[in-house]
Amino acid sequence: MKKSKKEKLQVIPLGGVELIGMNMTAFCYGDSIIVVDCGMAFPEDDMPGVDLVIPDISFLIENEDKVKGIFITHGHEDHIGAIPYVLNQLSVPLYATKLTMGIIEHKLEEKNMMTKVRRKVVSFGQSINAGCFRVEFIKTNHSIQDAAALAIYSPVGTVIHTGDFKVDYTPVFGDQIDLQRFAEIGKKGVLALCCDSTNAERPGFTQSERTVGRTFDNIFADNTDTRIIIATFASNVDRVQQIINSAHKYGRKCVIEGRSMVNIITTATELGYINIPPNTVISIDELKNFPDNRTCLITTGSQGESMAALSRMASGMHKKVRIKPNDTIIFSSHPIPGNEKAVSRVINELYRQGAKVIFQDVHVSGHACQEEIKLIYSLVKPKYAIPMHGEYKHLRAGAEIAKSLGYDSKHIFLLSSGDVLSMDEESAGVTGKVHAGSVMVDGLGVGDVGSVVLKDRQRLADDGIIIIVMTMQSGTGLVLSGPDIVSRGFVYVRGAEDLMDAAREVLNDELSDLTRRNVTDWTQIKSCLKGALSDFVWKETERRPMILPIIMEV
Amino acid sequence: MKKSKKEKLQVIPLGGVELIGMNMTAFCYGDSIIVVDCGMAFPEDDMPGVDLVIPDISFLIENEDKVKGIFITHGHEDHIGAIPYVLNQLSVPLYATKLTMGIIEHKLEEKNMMTKVRRKVVSFGQSINAGCFRVEFIKTNHSIQDAAALAIYSPVGTVIHTGDFKVDYTPVFGDQIDLQRFAEIGKKGVLALCCDSTNAERPGFTQSERTVGRTFDNIFADNTDTRIIIATFASNVDRVQQIINSAHKYGRKCVIEGRSMVNIITTATELGYINIPPNTVISIDELKNFPDNRTCLITTGSQGESMAALSRMASGMHKKVRIKPNDTIIFSSHPIPGNEKAVSRVINELYRQGAKVIFQDVHVSGHACQEEIKLIYSLVKPKYAIPMHGEYKHLRAGAEIAKSLGYDSKHIFLLSSGDVLSMDEESAGVTGKVHAGSVMVDGLGVGDVGSVVLKDRQRLADDGIIIIVMTMQSGTGLVLSGPDIVSRGFVYVRGAEDLMDAAREVLNDELSDLTRRNVTDWTQIKSCLKGALSDFVWKETERRPMILPIIMEV
Repeated sequence: MKKSKKEKLQVIPLGGVELIGMNMTAFCYGDSIIVVDCGMAFPEDDMPGVDLVIPDISFLIENEDKVKGIFITHGHEDHIGAIPYVLNQLSVPLYATKLTMGIIEHKLEEKNMMTKVRRKVVSFGQSINAGCFRVEFIKTNHSIQDAAALAIYSPVGTVIHTGDFKVDYTPVFGDQIDLQRFAEIGKKGVLALCCDSTNAERPGFTQSERTVGRTFDNIFADNTDTRIIIATFASNVDRVQQIINSAHKYGRKCVIEGRSMVNIITTATELGYINIPPNTVISIDELKNFPDNRTCLITTGSQGESMAALSRMASGMHKKVRIKPNDTIIFSSHPIPGNEKAVSRVINELYRQGAKVIFQDVHVSGHACQEEIKLIYSLVKPKYAIPMHGEYKHLRAGAEIAKSLGYDSKHIFLLSSGDVLSMDEESAGVTGKVHAGSVMVDGLGVGDVGSVVLKDRQRLADDGIIIIVMTMQSGTGLVLSGPDIVSRGFVYVRGAEDLMDAAREVLNDELSDLTRRNVTDWTQIKSCLKGALSDFVWKETERRPMILPIIMEV
Repeated sequence: MKKSKKEKLQVIPLGGVELIGMNMTAFCYGDSIIVVDCGMAFPEDDMPGVDLVIPDISFLIENEDKVKGIFITHGHEDHIGAIPYVLNQLSVPLYATKLTMGIIEHKLEEKNMMTKVRRKVVSFGQSINAGCFRVEFIKTNHSIQDAAALAIYSPVGTVIHTGDFKVDYTPVFGDQIDLQRFAEIGKKGVLALCCDSTNAERPGFTQSERTVGRTFDNIFADNTDTRIIIATFASNVDRVQQIINSAHKYGRKCVIEGRSMVNIITTATELGYINIPPNTVISIDELKNFPDNRTCLITTGSQGESMAALSRMASGMHKKVRIKPNDTIIFSSHPIPGNEKAVSRVINELYRQGAKVIFQDVHVSGHACQEEIKLIYSLVKPKYAIPMHGEYKHLRAGAEIAKSLGYDSKHIFLLSSGDVLSMDEESAGVTGKVHAGSVMVDGLGVGDVGSVVLKDRQRLADDGIIIIVMTMQSGTGLVLSGPDIVSRGFVYVRGAEDLMDAAREVLNDELSDLTRRNVTDWTQIKSCLKGALSDFVWKETERRPMILPIIMEV
C-alpha cells in the first residue's frame, strides 16, 4: 500500500465520554482501522426501561473492510459488554489476554456465538500485526487480572493506550505493571498517550490491593463469633482470593453466591487465576452443616443492585440465606457514582435486622491516582496527551495533570464521541467528526428504543395514561358506543370515580358541541376530545396524563 | 385534670425514619398532644410522578381535640414542608421563631391560608403552655438562622429535642448555641434527649460557618478577571450573607437568582436577618451594565436539580444568563445522598462550556459531628437517649455515641414511624404502635396515589402500553370492528410495523379460536386476547408491556 506523505494517524472515540462506560476507540491509518475495547454502559435516569446502552458503530460498519481487529484491554463490562452486539454486525477478529478472553467466551457461549467469532489469546509482550498497525500487549495492574495497556505502532508513530490501570508494586496475583517496557517504548519516542483519568481528581497513589487482605485479616480476627458476609465486585478475583485466604486462615468455609461472581470465579479457577485451598469453598446448600462462626459468604450486591444476592438477602427475598441479627456484613467496595442511595438503602435494611455492617475502608481503587498518572507520563513522555476514561470532569483533571508536567494546552486533547483527532510528529488537531453515539438495548431489541418512546415512557411514568374510546358509525358519524374512559397509572384511590364521571360528562358535552357544529372529521373530533379532557384534568388535578383518543368504526 | 399515677409520657415519631425528611414527632400525655415539626420528603426512585411525600396524620386527626399545637424547630422544608397540607386537615396553633415563621407565612400566603392558621412567634428563652406541657425554645446553630431546640416539660419529666443543630462558636449572625441553658436544664434532670444524628458517623467537630467566608475571600482574590457564579442552598442566609460580604469587599455587584432563594432572602431582609450594603445587590436585568469581573451571581441549583437556575444556565435553557468560557463557578454545597450524579452532570456540562468549576471544600455542614453530640449529651445528661434525624444507619451511629458515653443499650431507643415509646423516671420502652406512614402528593391530589398506581407507572415506564380495542355486537357477540392495536412507549422505530401486523394476526387467530369454542363471556375474551398477545410480544421482544384490552359494545 502506497501512502500519501501527508497522511496522519486518526484517533476516534466511538463510545463513552458523554455516557460513561461505552469504552471504544478507533485508530485509523490509510486502509487500516483497529478498535480498542467494546464496552457497554448502564442506562441513565432518563432512559426508563432500557437494559443497557452500547456504542453506535455505524462508522465501523461503513468501513468494515478496513477494520482489522478489536483489541480488548481487560474483562470489565465497560470494556467488553458490547462485544456480542457489535460482533453480530461486524465480522472481525478479537484479541485479548487469557482471563479477559475467558470472560468474553462465557458471554459468547450464552449467545451461541462461539463459532462465529474469530479470537486470539495474546500474551504480554506479544505483538499482533493488523493492517498497517502493530499492537503490543503490556502488563498493567487493575481491579481485575490480566489487564493490558496497548502500544499501537503506526507508520507515523506510536500511541500508548493505558486501558484502566493502577501501579501495584505488590499485586496479589502475577506481576507488577511492566514499567520497564513503558520506559523502553517511551525512550524510542511516543506520539501520544491515551491515559486512564478515572482517579485524576485524587492526589497521591492508589494503595496496593494487598492492603485489603490485611484489613480482612483484622476483621476476621475481630469477629470470631458471628457469620461473615462480604459483598464485593464480581470481577475482582484478587479480592475474592484474599477473602478466601483470610477465611482459610481463620478456619471458615466459603460460599460464593451471585450468578456473575460464580461465573467469573469459575472461569478464573479453570484458567488458574485463583488458588482455592482444598475443602475451603462449599456450596450454599452445605452452609447449614457448619456453625455460623465457621462460615463466610462472598456475594454480589456491593452496589445495592436490587436483584443482586446481598440485596435479596437484606429484603428477605433470597431463597437460601436470611440475615441474622449477629451477622457481620462487609461492603468491600465503594459506591459507583449514582449508586450511593441504593447502597445506603441496603445498609439501612441490614442494620434494621440487627446485623453489624462495615462499609468504610475495606476497598482500594483499581485506577491510578495523580502521582501514578504522572509516573506513566514521565516514563512514556508522549508528544500529545489524550486523557481518557471518566466523566468530562475527570478528563479535565487528567488534562490538568498533563499541564502540571509542562504540556502545552495545544498538545492536550479532550475528545468527544466521534471527534477525529489527526496527528503526526508535526502537528495534531481535531479535523472532523464521524457519526457516533449510543444505541439503547431493551429486551431483544437493539436500537429500537428512540427518543419518542423514551419521552412517552417518561410521561406515562409521571402521570399515567387516560384512554378515550368510542365507536362511531361509518358514514353517518353517529356515536354508537362511548365515549368511555379507561385509565392506568392515574389517580383513582380517592374520589377518582366522581372525577371519571365528571370527565365523561365533559366528553359528552364536547361531542354534542361537535355534532351541533357538524364536525365529522375524526382527526378533528379526536383532537377536540383530547383537548377538552386535558383541560378538565389539569383544572381538577394539576396533572398532565397522556390522553389517547381511539375511535372505532363500525 | 387528674392523672393515673401510672401514666407515662409517650413519644411517637409520625414522619421520617423510613423516608428521610418527613420530620414529625408527637409527645402525648393524658389529654394533651403536642407535635414537633411538620416536614415533607422528596419522592424515592420507585415513586414516579410523585411531587412530594408528607406524613400520614391519621393519628392526629383521630385525636384532634387533644392536639394543643405544632412546634417548629426551624425553617427547612424537611421540618415545615407539610404544614399547608397538615393544617388543611387539622386546626391547631403553630409556634416558631421569627425567621422560621416568616418562611412559613410565605408558604401559607401562596396557599391562601393566612387567615385560617393561628400562629405565634416565639423568642428564645420563651415558654409556651400547651395542655399539660410547657415548651421552651432554646437557641441553637444550624445552616439556617433562628433554629431552636425545644425543652418539653411534662408532668413526668423533661425531654429535650435538639432539632437540627451544630455548635458554632463564631456564627455569622446572632448568638452561639445556648450551651448554658442546655446545662441548666440538664442539671435539674432530663428524662430524654432526642438528638440530631445526621452527622453521627463523622468524627470530630463541624467547622464554623464563618470559615466558608474566608474561603470565599480567597476565591474572590484569586479570580479577579472573571465573572463569579456561586450556587448554594436557597435557605442558607448566612452563606448568602458571606458571599455578599466578599463580593462587596472585592467591588462586585450581586445578583440573586432562583425563585426559592429570592423568596427566602426577601423574607430574611424584611425581618432583618441579612445585612446588604447599599448598591450591592442588583437585578438580573442590570447585569449587562457591568463588566463580568465586577459581577457575582448567587444562585440555586447546587444539588443539580434540573429546573433550578444553575442547571438551566448549564443547559442553555436560562432566559437571561449564558455560561461563558471564563466563568468561575462555585458549588458551595455538598451533594445530598442521591443527588451525586445530577450534580456531576451539571459540573461536566459547565466544564464542557469551558468554565472553571470549584466544588470541593467550599461548604461546611449544618449538623453536629460526634464530638458536638457528645457535648450536648454531657450538658444535658438525659436518662434515655433517642437518636433522631437521619437514615437508620445514622440513628445507629447516634446510638453508638450514646453507648460510648456509657449508656446502657436498654436506655437507647431507635424508633420507627408509629412506635409508641412510653417513659417516666422508672422505666421506658416501646409499648405500642399507632398508624403512621407516608402520603404521596401529586399535583393537587393528596393521598390519591396508591401502590397500584405506582406499580402501573413503573410498568408503563419500563415497557410502555399496548391497547387492544374492538367493537362487538351486544347479544350476538359478533366482532364489528377490530381488534386494533395502539401502543405508546413501546418499541416501534425499527421493524415494529411488521410486529404490529403479526400481533394483529395473533389476535385474529385467538378470536377465531374463541368463536369456534363458543366463548362469549367478555371477561374471558379479554383475558385470552391479553394472554395471547403477551406471549407473542415476550417471544418476539423479551419485553412485558402493559396490555390493556378494551371491548366496546354496540
